[in-house]
Amino acid sequence: MYMNIELVLASNSIRRREILERTGIDFSLDAADIDENLGIDDPEELVRELSYRKAASVAPKHRGKAVLGADTIVVLGKDILGKPKDEEDAFQMLSKLSGNTHKVYTGVTILKLQDKEPPVPEELRDTFCCMSEVTMYELEPELIRSYIATGEPMDKAGSYGIQDIGAILIKEIRGSYHNVVGLPIGEVWRHLKEFL
Amino acid sequence: MYMNIELVLASNSIRRREILERTGIDFSLDAADIDENLGIDDPEELVRELSYRKAASVAPKHRGKAVLGADTIVVLGKDILGKPKDEEDAFQMLSKLSGNTHKVYTGVTILKLQDKEPPVPEELRDTFCCMSEVTMYELEPELIRSYIATGEPMDKAGSYGIQDIGAILIKEIRGSYHNVVGLPIGEVWRHLKEFL
Repeated sequence: MYMNIELVLASNSIRRREILERTGIDFSLDAADIDENLGIDDPEELVRELSYRKAASVAPKHRGKAVLGADTIVVLGKDILGKPKDEEDAFQMLSKLSGNTHKVYTGVTILKLQDKEPPVPEELRDTFCCMSEVTMYELEPELIRSYIATGEPMDKAGSYGIQDIGAILIKEIRGSYHNVVGLPIGEVWRHLKEFL
Repeated sequence: MYMNIELVLASNSIRRREILERTGIDFSLDAADIDENLGIDDPEELVRELSYRKAASVAPKHRGKAVLGADTIVVLGKDILGKPKDEEDAFQMLSKLSGNTHKVYTGVTILKLQDKEPPVPEELRDTFCCMSEVTMYELEPELIRSYIATGEPMDKAGSYGIQDIGAILIKEIRGSYHNVVGLPIGEVWRHLKEFL
């Protein structure tokens, strides 16, 4: 749907790009490459900071435009589950998630560096966080192995993607679905409207 | 993901087709065309019956294969919201859904007519129903009008599609997301496994 904003998505996530494309917001892409190991234990603080760093890393190239950064993590109990190191790691993660409810946090930053002179503020920034709960079915080891064999888990936080094959692992969610995919588009839309 | 089943989807819904395609289940298509006005008031009974009629209407052409029929409705309070008659009807529906929580029911039938002689039973049938709750943001009339102008609401129960532009209308869901799109793929997967 049309929005009068010049937007840059600071992400190389196909899933985030697809969510924005499907809602019909015009944007360009400039993938951020940052160090994601910050040593922050609090999930909300971590994704907020990572989303800001992603936006900030490319914003100087796009003065006058709104840059959107986002980061998504999966949290089970006290454990933050990132992308799996290898297939065995994916198997361990999915075995832990099986039959349980976990939380998915996405941090989002909208950042605009001005191209105008003071007294216009140098930087406009809005950072927020969204959380959804996800309950998985009990997964038989053979099902986990078959799923890993599809290759889908390997580039995804928590070793699953809810929007494709991983859909069959998910019993129910509470909260924003698109937050679990990687971008809470309802909140993003409203924050972009405010940001304008 | 591979499943050793010959499946026919009795639906012309692009959304159902996409959900099955994304999970990697092989299937063919044979859209059912049935009268959807049954005069049944109970949502669960209605979608169960409609899903059966869809499957049954094409099953004789596909003996020996599993035929999948599905029907999805949106329910607000006591009102069953089908597809809008026109743009004004869509506006009325979305105005009612705005700021409220509604229920989405999908009925699913898996039906197989045998091509073998008795004592094999003539028909194998599994019908089930899935319900999710959906909470919409408060929608300003201008947002509803802009959404209707995209054309998206016109062929959808409840006048919205959660997977595309309509995503920006949705605050949260409780239950299966894919059920809201039109096919509760986690349940379908497990019922197909049992059906084999």
